[in-house]
Amino acid sequence: MNSPTATLLISCPDQKGLVAKIANFIYANGGNIIHADQHTDFSAGLFLMRIEWQLDGFNLPRDVISPAFAAIAKPLQAVWQLHFSDTIPRIAIWVTKQDHCLLDLLWRAKSREFAAEVPLVISNHNTLKSIAEQFEINFFHLPISSENKIQQEARQLEILREYKIDLVVLAKYMQVLTREFINYFPNVINIHHSFLPAFAGANPYQRAYDRGVKIIGATAHYITADLDEGPIIEQDVVRVSHRDTVTDLIRKGKDLERVVLARAVRLHLQNRILVYGNRTVVFA
Amino acid sequence: MNSPTATLLISCPDQKGLVAKIANFIYANGGNIIHADQHTDFSAGLFLMRIEWQLDGFNLPRDVISPAFAAIAKPLQAVWQLHFSDTIPRIAIWVTKQDHCLLDLLWRAKSREFAAEVPLVISNHNTLKSIAEQFEINFFHLPISSENKIQQEARQLEILREYKIDLVVLAKYMQVLTREFINYFPNVINIHHSFLPAFAGANPYQRAYDRGVKIIGATAHYITADLDEGPIIEQDVVRVSHRDTVTDLIRKGKDLERVVLARAVRLHLQNRILVYGNRTVVFA
Amino acid sequence: MNSPTATLLISCPDQKGLVAKIANFIYANGGNIIHADQHTDFSAGLFLMRIEWQLDGFNLPRDVISPAFAAIAKPLQAVWQLHFSDTIPRIAIWVTKQDHCLLDLLWRAKSREFAAEVPLVISNHNTLKSIAEQFEINFFHLPISSENKIQQEARQLEILREYKIDLVVLAKYMQVLTREFINYFPNVINIHHSFLPAFAGANPYQRAYDRGVKIIGATAHYITADLDEGPIIEQDVVRVSHRDTVTDLIRKGKDLERVVLARAVRLHLQNRILVYGNRTVVFA
Amino acid sequence: MNSPTATLLISCPDQKGLVAKIANFIYANGGNIIHADQHTDFSAGLFLMRIEWQLDGFNLPRDVISPAFAAIAKPLQAVWQLHFSDTIPRIAIWVTKQDHCLLDLLWRAKSREFAAEVPLVISNHNTLKSIAEQFEINFFHLPISSENKIQQEARQLEILREYKIDLVVLAKYMQVLTREFINYFPNVINIHHSFLPAFAGANPYQRAYDRGVKIIGATAHYITADLDEGPIIEQDVVRVSHRDTVTDLIRKGKDLERVVLARAVRLHLQNRILVYGNRTVVFA
Repeated sequence: MNSPTATLLISCPDQKGLVAKIANFIYANGGNIIHADQHTDFSAGLFLMRIEWQLDGFNLPRDVISPAFAAIAKPLQAVWQLHFSDTIPRIAIWVTKQDHCLLDLLWRAKSREFAAEVPLVISNHNTLKSIAEQFEINFFHLPISSENKIQQEARQLEILREYKIDLVVLAKYMQVLTREFINYFPNVINIHHSFLPAFAGANPYQRAYDRGVKIIGATAHYITADLDEGPIIEQDVVRVSHRDTVTDLIRKGKDLERVVLARAVRLHLQNRILVYGNRTVVFA
Repeated sequence: MNSPTATLLISCPDQKGLVAKIANFIYANGGNIIHADQHTDFSAGLFLMRIEWQLDGFNLPRDVISPAFAAIAKPLQAVWQLHFSDTIPRIAIWVTKQDHCLLDLLWRAKSREFAAEVPLVISNHNTLKSIAEQFEINFFHLPISSENKIQQEARQLEILREYKIDLVVLAKYMQVLTREFINYFPNVINIHHSFLPAFAGANPYQRAYDRGVKIIGATAHYITADLDEGPIIEQDVVRVSHRDTVTDLIRKGKDLERVVLARAVRLHLQNRILVYGNRTVVFA
Repeated sequence: MNSPTATLLISCPDQKGLVAKIANFIYANGGNIIHADQHTDFSAGLFLMRIEWQLDGFNLPRDVISPAFAAIAKPLQAVWQLHFSDTIPRIAIWVTKQDHCLLDLLWRAKSREFAAEVPLVISNHNTLKSIAEQFEINFFHLPISSENKIQQEARQLEILREYKIDLVVLAKYMQVLTREFINYFPNVINIHHSFLPAFAGANPYQRAYDRGVKIIGATAHYITADLDEGPIIEQDVVRVSHRDTVTDLIRKGKDLERVVLARAVRLHLQNRILVYGNRTVVFA
Repeated sequence: MNSPTATLLISCPDQKGLVAKIANFIYANGGNIIHADQHTDFSAGLFLMRIEWQLDGFNLPRDVISPAFAAIAKPLQAVWQLHFSDTIPRIAIWVTKQDHCLLDLLWRAKSREFAAEVPLVISNHNTLKSIAEQFEINFFHLPISSENKIQQEARQLEILREYKIDLVVLAKYMQVLTREFINYFPNVINIHHSFLPAFAGANPYQRAYDRGVKIIGATAHYITADLDEGPIIEQDVVRVSHRDTVTDLIRKGKDLERVVLARAVRLHLQNRILVYGNRTVVFA
């Protein structure tokens, strides 16, 4: 199990022989499949698959796998990604003033719960700088105003490129990203402090309190240009009662936000998520 | 514990001495309190209390309790209700075509999970008549159209009066009640097949599927004139995944709807719910 | 999606090429795979797979599929089962005196939640006879004593054979089955009213109350000769508090038992469960 | 609401007039009750109550409240505690090598989720010393062997006295405390990494895996002389599947352990827990 693995994430129009063709490609080259899962969305006529195999004993050199598989994928009209388990992704965590998600992610990264490096924290405030320093991570303070937003996003993209960042995690980053930013850099996971689509937008805990709900939630999703409308990765909930004030909802919500965001990041890092339309398939 | 009990549900502006005054009233008359719970909503400046005591050994005759307590309640500007545990409430269940909530409620009533009688089922269709017959319950078929709605609601109210109904349970009744009906008869519990306020309105399971949520829910609430906006009594949720079709959501949702509605009805029958503003206090 | 399907459940020693060989078998014969899921238990060196494909357009006649697949399975040392979705399994429900699981299963069968027929109820008491009659199902009253247990189990097996029963569901059947019975008829699902292995054996709700737990559970499992030790299929839990008496635990537990048992039966009927050692793989 | 409060936790044989007598005591002295909750265990004949009132406007000086209430409590044969909300409790956290619960508790203390001070970490290993230093908390390394256990417990008690510790939290402290220690210092909360009473004792995750459970849990409880048998304060659970290895159970369990332990500590610090027999009443 300690062999590095390759993982293919594939989606294509449904047709006969897909599993056989993909499995044959791996078997013919000496690969041992350790995980394979598929899903067919019949209404969309779409086949989606995740397949992972050990690289030890696999006959194709790594740089040949992509071109070799492309020859199979093209006639299937497949969209696909190839990942190697020993290529460690690089995460930038973006925050505003709240520390609970940031600390939680950094602790998990340090504890090896995530196979990822976090070289970078970006914030529109200076509040959490000391946490980044404590974990010996670079901290960029990029204040955002309506006047400088475009320039600051350009600077943010520059930093992401410079640090070769694969994934941005908005860990309570209280700014909206522009459509342009997301077009350039689509791998952005956000944690929203409500059970979406309930209480999309601002102040979800206050609104949950006002509505008198008996359960609150948190939602991790990919960012799209439509605020709080992106594909949902993970959600979880906790009970509340009339005894809980808004302050209590916020406190209980923090525990949810931490764990829901961490699960989503982990699923992404393990290449278990396929997005189609505004939905996710999570091969958990 | 087999003694019948009296239960007071009280709300009034918060002030010193409320617990003492109410507890003294019961103690001075020889009552043994078996349950007392209170809540103070500081932002509303409101005190809410449920207090239950044994009638065995209580010195006041039942018909004197209300006038005697009124003398205490009036200077406190309290709104209050008095209930006796051996006065069995009478429920009318309203349905359309789906049977799962109806069967579940009838089974619970028959199994003595509810201290209530169900003499009556009303439906806008004939589909579930045989179930009412099997349980030897009267079944009224009152079809609703845009033309006859006002007359049919008048007929429904007439039936509720005739059968001395205390509580209407909308067990998948797919018609909206008018503001006028609710003004006349406010004790109506509904089960909505979503985690309100998400997916208020029609087709919540289809919309939950389209949004790609990872958890679905059900909500029991009191009916108000604003559709799906009434005070929430109880909610619960269940996980779904990309493998679940809309049909699966509907099936999983049925199990939620049954149990959430049953819990809400039970809490109401035990006089554990106080409504204020658009919120409930549930002394569970 | 309305085509009937075939489902293979396979387990064999892990080795390269398994997915390819099995998928090729289906593809070579014109089958369209609609669901495939696999699991490798590395510590046991075991590969387990569920694969389902449409029979429409599949070139092999049904009675040839087994011998044809056997030729592939044998060199892999595979243990396997083949099921057709339009072969409706037949269930015998066994009960004692409690009706909640029985009614729930019969309601689900009638509502087409289960693709199964229930021709038969067996009980060691006469209490629930009228329910069987109401659903027009045969009811066998077979009282059990220490003297007659062996003969009654022989009679039970005779009935199962006569009615061509595929699955026995112990829906609160309060008798232990002998090792001999289980050897003859191993497809038996039981619902245990605790979160196993906590409170295995008798009176779990009383013991849960005495221990002061804050959560109770229910467990559906296959029966083995060791009481309450069989492979677990499904579990679920519900919160309790100091306010809940043993009677409340029993009431809350009933809702759990119903839904946990129903989920387990459904998973079994959909051929989603593989047992190995004392564990289950549930391809949900 | 910013007024400091006093909280009484009371248990006594059930009898008439208890609520009235206690509420009168507070009202007669000018107190405003902001929270009152009670429970009667009829089988034990025991009345238990938590009552909290504002000290602003209360006529009795703090040091007179106890003797004044004693005069009321004595004839009731009541056992009781009095706490002031602005007396900040002092916690010692004990750990071995795992950091997740320690970090979580320290973060919550620093974020003011807990109204408590943590001046002290004790460990039988040196592993987590740097965490204590980072939070500027004293760290005591007291290795335990079968030979030195008695002396080290004496030293531990000495430290607790010296630092005026009110509560010991075993945050993954992998040593058993002796009966003698617990007699001297009974306020000890432990987190056990299973859903007690399932998998009491060592290696619960491995045993949960071996048993093939579908849900794992964590349990916070007060320590007694009987290992893992003390009164349960809080439990929670999370789903697992056949895909989860023992390592996954441990990882998922960490998230449970953190939140379950934190909830239990918070409930204790808010004086919401009454212990009787081997049970807790949690006035949440």
